Amino acid sequence: MFAITKAKPERGIWSSDQPTLTTPGRGMVMVDVIAAGICGTDYHIFRWDQWSSGRIRTPMTIGHEFVGRISAIGEDVSGYEIGQRVSAECHIACGQCMLCRTGNTHICEKTEIIGVDRPGAFAERVEIPASNLWKVPDAIPDRHAAVFDPIGNAMHMVTTAEVTSRDVLIVGGGPIGLFAAAIAKAHGARSVSVQEPNQARAALAKDLEPDLVVNPRDPDCTSRILDVTGGRGPDVVLEVSGNGVALNAALDIAAPGATVALLGIPGGPVELDLGGKVVMKGIRLLGVTGRRMYETWFQVEAFMLKNPELIDKVVTHILPARDFEQGFQLMDDGACGKVVLDFQDIGQGEVA
Amino acid sequence: MFAITKAKPERGIWSSDQPTLTTPGRGMVMVDVIAAGICGTDYHIFRWDQWSSGRIRTPMTIGHEFVGRISAIGEDVSGYEIGQRVSAECHIACGQCMLCRTGNTHICEKTEIIGVDRPGAFAERVEIPASNLWKVPDAIPDRHAAVFDPIGNAMHMVTTAEVTSRDVLIVGGGPIGLFAAAIAKAHGARSVSVQEPNQARAALAKDLEPDLVVNPRDPDCTSRILDVTGGRGPDVVLEVSGNGVALNAALDIAAPGATVALLGIPGGPVELDLGGKVVMKGIRLLGVTGRRMYETWFQVEAFMLKNPELIDKVVTHILPARDFEQGFQLMDDGACGKVVLDFQDIGQGEVA
Amino acid sequence: MFAITKAKPERGIWSSDQPTLTTPGRGMVMVDVIAAGICGTDYHIFRWDQWSSGRIRTPMTIGHEFVGRISAIGEDVSGYEIGQRVSAECHIACGQCMLCRTGNTHICEKTEIIGVDRPGAFAERVEIPASNLWKVPDAIPDRHAAVFDPIGNAMHMVTTAEVTSRDVLIVGGGPIGLFAAAIAKAHGARSVSVQEPNQARAALAKDLEPDLVVNPRDPDCTSRILDVTGGRGPDVVLEVSGNGVALNAALDIAAPGATVALLGIPGGPVELDLGGKVVMKGIRLLGVTGRRMYETWFQVEAFMLKNPELIDKVVTHILPARDFEQGFQLMDDGACGKVVLDFQDIGQGEVA
Amino acid sequence: MFAITKAKPERGIWSSDQPTLTTPGRGMVMVDVIAAGICGTDYHIFRWDQWSSGRIRTPMTIGHEFVGRISAIGEDVSGYEIGQRVSAECHIACGQCMLCRTGNTHICEKTEIIGVDRPGAFAERVEIPASNLWKVPDAIPDRHAAVFDPIGNAMHMVTTAEVTSRDVLIVGGGPIGLFAAAIAKAHGARSVSVQEPNQARAALAKDLEPDLVVNPRDPDCTSRILDVTGGRGPDVVLEVSGNGVALNAALDIAAPGATVALLGIPGGPVELDLGGKVVMKGIRLLGVTGRRMYETWFQVEAFMLKNPELIDKVVTHILPARDFEQGFQLMDDGACGKVVLDFQDIGQGEVA
Repeated sequence: MFAITKAKPERGIWSSDQPTLTTPGRGMVMVDVIAAGICGTDYHIFRWDQWSSGRIRTPMTIGHEFVGRISAIGEDVSGYEIGQRVSAECHIACGQCMLCRTGNTHICEKTEIIGVDRPGAFAERVEIPASNLWKVPDAIPDRHAAVFDPIGNAMHMVTTAEVTSRDVLIVGGGPIGLFAAAIAKAHGARSVSVQEPNQARAALAKDLEPDLVVNPRDPDCTSRILDVTGGRGPDVVLEVSGNGVALNAALDIAAPGATVALLGIPGGPVELDLGGKVVMKGIRLLGVTGRRMYETWFQVEAFMLKNPELIDKVVTHILPARDFEQGFQLMDDGACGKVVLDFQDIGQGEVA
Repeated sequence: MFAITKAKPERGIWSSDQPTLTTPGRGMVMVDVIAAGICGTDYHIFRWDQWSSGRIRTPMTIGHEFVGRISAIGEDVSGYEIGQRVSAECHIACGQCMLCRTGNTHICEKTEIIGVDRPGAFAERVEIPASNLWKVPDAIPDRHAAVFDPIGNAMHMVTTAEVTSRDVLIVGGGPIGLFAAAIAKAHGARSVSVQEPNQARAALAKDLEPDLVVNPRDPDCTSRILDVTGGRGPDVVLEVSGNGVALNAALDIAAPGATVALLGIPGGPVELDLGGKVVMKGIRLLGVTGRRMYETWFQVEAFMLKNPELIDKVVTHILPARDFEQGFQLMDDGACGKVVLDFQDIGQGEVA
Repeated sequence: MFAITKAKPERGIWSSDQPTLTTPGRGMVMVDVIAAGICGTDYHIFRWDQWSSGRIRTPMTIGHEFVGRISAIGEDVSGYEIGQRVSAECHIACGQCMLCRTGNTHICEKTEIIGVDRPGAFAERVEIPASNLWKVPDAIPDRHAAVFDPIGNAMHMVTTAEVTSRDVLIVGGGPIGLFAAAIAKAHGARSVSVQEPNQARAALAKDLEPDLVVNPRDPDCTSRILDVTGGRGPDVVLEVSGNGVALNAALDIAAPGATVALLGIPGGPVELDLGGKVVMKGIRLLGVTGRRMYETWFQVEAFMLKNPELIDKVVTHILPARDFEQGFQLMDDGACGKVVLDFQDIGQGEVA
Repeated sequence: MFAITKAKPERGIWSSDQPTLTTPGRGMVMVDVIAAGICGTDYHIFRWDQWSSGRIRTPMTIGHEFVGRISAIGEDVSGYEIGQRVSAECHIACGQCMLCRTGNTHICEKTEIIGVDRPGAFAERVEIPASNLWKVPDAIPDRHAAVFDPIGNAMHMVTTAEVTSRDVLIVGGGPIGLFAAAIAKAHGARSVSVQEPNQARAALAKDLEPDLVVNPRDPDCTSRILDVTGGRGPDVVLEVSGNGVALNAALDIAAPGATVALLGIPGGPVELDLGGKVVMKGIRLLGVTGRRMYETWFQVEAFMLKNPELIDKVVTHILPARDFEQGFQLMDDGACGKVVLDFQDIGQGEVA
């Protein structure tokens, strides 16, 4: 079968011909992929940066945010049937540690990730534990269902930070920042500001009609954020850029008592004025990773059903899966929102 | 009247003779001081470090943690009477900003602090807004009532971090760390570990009978903490040292999902591996300052009434107020827990 | 000056000529009323039911939800100026009890209510403690600013119940139920259903475009609610009807773990199957009264600024203040949403 | 093998000889029972009340709170070994519903209960799903490990109500009320009062040294509770009696804003003054059932390790399993705390 694979330990990503998966293991199902989103993680693997070169064992078929249809069901699986449309949580946790047993499955230290530690969803077929499946309601189109996972990252961050009635500053306008802006609006934020230097992304952010889109390089960036937030500064900061300078600037401007959710991964250590900007101001810095299993998924589904038009503003490209190189190039250029690959073209049809 | 005053902008602290306060302003009361604790803040002012030299206008009578008796009552004060024993919250907030109007008075940006921005409690008499008074129950002795404020810092930190049933690591065994250890035990922590390099303080910590007292310079420090915490690492860290190296070590060892309360003020910026140690682990870093007005005070009172023996283990010295230099010297030597100054000796009696 | 007054201890409400208020007391301001909403409480006083006849000392000028302009400022008031447009919290709490000192001012047991225990806002002028004022942003029109208070009740209920991503059932479509429906949508509820037997109110509810408006007398009421909630039943119930039968029906249908906010006041005791419907299902029943001071006010302001069109769908009538009898009649007939009285017509102009 | 069985649909409980269980199913283990506690549920089944006669299909071996050793391990079980000492959660949830997937497994509507819906632990051997096992640390003796489950009920109630620094009233001094009193003390309650009319139970409560043990039939019951709670009334009520009269009395005396956890199951509907006592006072009524899986278990383990002496004050009887009738008689007489049956005497040894 067709698959998009990290074949060699160097920059790049390649198509490959893999043996077609057939019989799922106990507790597993096979899912024929309809569409899959390209994640920032996939892009890291493409670039073969420090993290990915230390983690991935080549060859590895990548991809983990997807929608598909169940094509085979293993032993001891109940509640699912052939042909059912599903997405899936890509973190396969141990289920036995204290974290897993207390609702913190998403930070289990023994997690394996689909498309990172085992064969992924950029393929005609992927094998998934039944416990990780998510049934997709008919009202959600494939192009949205394919990105349950990254909307889940954004949702996890937004719900952790509690944005309702608050002035929210989103630092970074990539797909997760854009989804976060859409969710913050839908959850009743008092104001939503998006800070993004890339003009293409800033334009996408503007399409979502937040209260402010601002370039951090503009000299009046701070004053404009203060204007939107009643002079007090944001009381919620959602940091998705991984940029230490931007984080420090956000801590400067944040209102005392603000919540700062950290989702972006800085390239190295970050220097922070913890005394003046965190302790004395009573700031909360909350690390956010993955999605709560499966509370976040219910939240994403609710959001998707109510706000399809917002999702369409972030999913900017749907490409035939064989054109995956173009997708990675778009990400390299910062010229896109979320890019979805259509695996239907491998044989059957077109993504709705 | 006798007062302990920052008379000159240089290292040191001096006794002074101040005009005796007489008529309290509207909404104010005069309190004749019985006893007062020396705070780390007072010590900073003594040393005339960067923070204090930038903030204090000399001459300034210092001191803000105290107990006394009301000796005069201003207009528009109700609910208090002459002779009543009181302590007081030293943060005088504006009462009108969004923070003050939403229960976040402790981080009001217009706060004035007694003993920092206006004359303090290291004196025979201090003027206090009635709204900031705290009536002291008879069952609480003066030597405990004098330290409502720092126990409040510890209580605010412990309650923010939610220690019940959790493995708690306290980084720093000064008075606030010691009080935090006592409170964490009283609130049902699964285990309490105190990390402290100073041997005198470590000995005080041991008196509180936590599960572990450990020297961060010991090579087996980490393994001993892991032993106490079931191999998982602490799920609550209370950082009171302000030491960046210790904070990074604590983040290394903390369990995923851990809460790290930050109360210590580092001397400068701190480098953190936010990606690996905060984001990916889902860690929460919570800046804690002051005391919740006045929820923290109720909590401290409850703790004091139930655990007087623990407080006595932390209040190591009660000195006549005129011997204040000895108190500051003890702090300089790290040879004490909490030092309380007895202002009764200025004329009336002895601290109970 | 003109005032609407409970003049006699019997059913009815009357206009009266009161001495014009002039000099505000210390800490107080005079507010010239622009517009005021008729509250269910006012209607209870009109009907002279058991609660009001036990509480009100006649004669009493009623009314407590309003907007106006400051016309005089007493001593010791800062931060306000003549001509400023304001609304106000009608609960005047003691400020000294444990509840007041721990952020629970709204349930202070010594509260006095404007228009219940002291002269109210259905008058040309009302005297208000400066601490209870709320500055109204220019972007909020008078007809909205007049109903900060009841939107605050709805907001308090909705935020207490935490509706985001949840299936919400609102029991009762009076003004507070309608405002709650609007807020639940704006805060990202998964679905909003309104249950209301009165056809006029049900029509108003439909204007808000919730997922379902249903008549509890319809035989398929339950099945329709189940349809909207994915077969699980609502996980949030907002009870504003005070109807015990409706509450029991809601408990039957509520999902296990549901939150049931109780705001409606039943006429007498209510029988509940606590074992089967509350304990075994892990249900939370949360009594909600008044507004959080002043967190709720910030939330209402944020909602008002973003959703003016929703408020206009609930404020169905603006009547000249002298036509107040018509307003009470509309409430008696259940033929209205929120009724606002225009006090500008007493001399100056018209409500915007 | 020996088992204690509800053999017939009538009052009583009987010993029986069952076929010895041998091969566990997939995902299951066999546990040889060391000791088991008699639960209130077992007593209901003994009495054959309305609930039990409607739920139990006879013959059914009962019992669900226990400790034992693993004697056989089924397929697909990892992380456990023969001889390991374990207790277990008796609720076997579906794992697939929204409740199970969002951390609310304890209120799954498809739950099966060991000893109620499938053969229980009052037997020499019981079959348990591996996912429900709880490894017992060596430091916890058998007589404590046997009652993880009811301490879990108490823990779930206490942690849901949040008792730290609060005045707690426990209504009902049976085993769960007694455990709750012990836990509330260990978690730092400001005061703990136990209300219990039965003198034997009141004596057990006194052994735990709460601030007050009071008989609800005493005329000064209310005034004594007010004395202990600073005149404000309890701000936490833990209702374990299922007595509607007691619940109403507790609501009368509870402080505004109080949390009332409901665990006791009333025999029928209860009349409540929701308006005056719940809505207007801002009271929270929280239904509590079962234990959070598995957060509650971690909390219980932490409590057990720190407070063995408190548990010993509640576990009043350890009887040879064959003397089970005496155990049920003690419960019928209200003459005991928790009764534990020793299944070691069936052949091997004695409970530690």
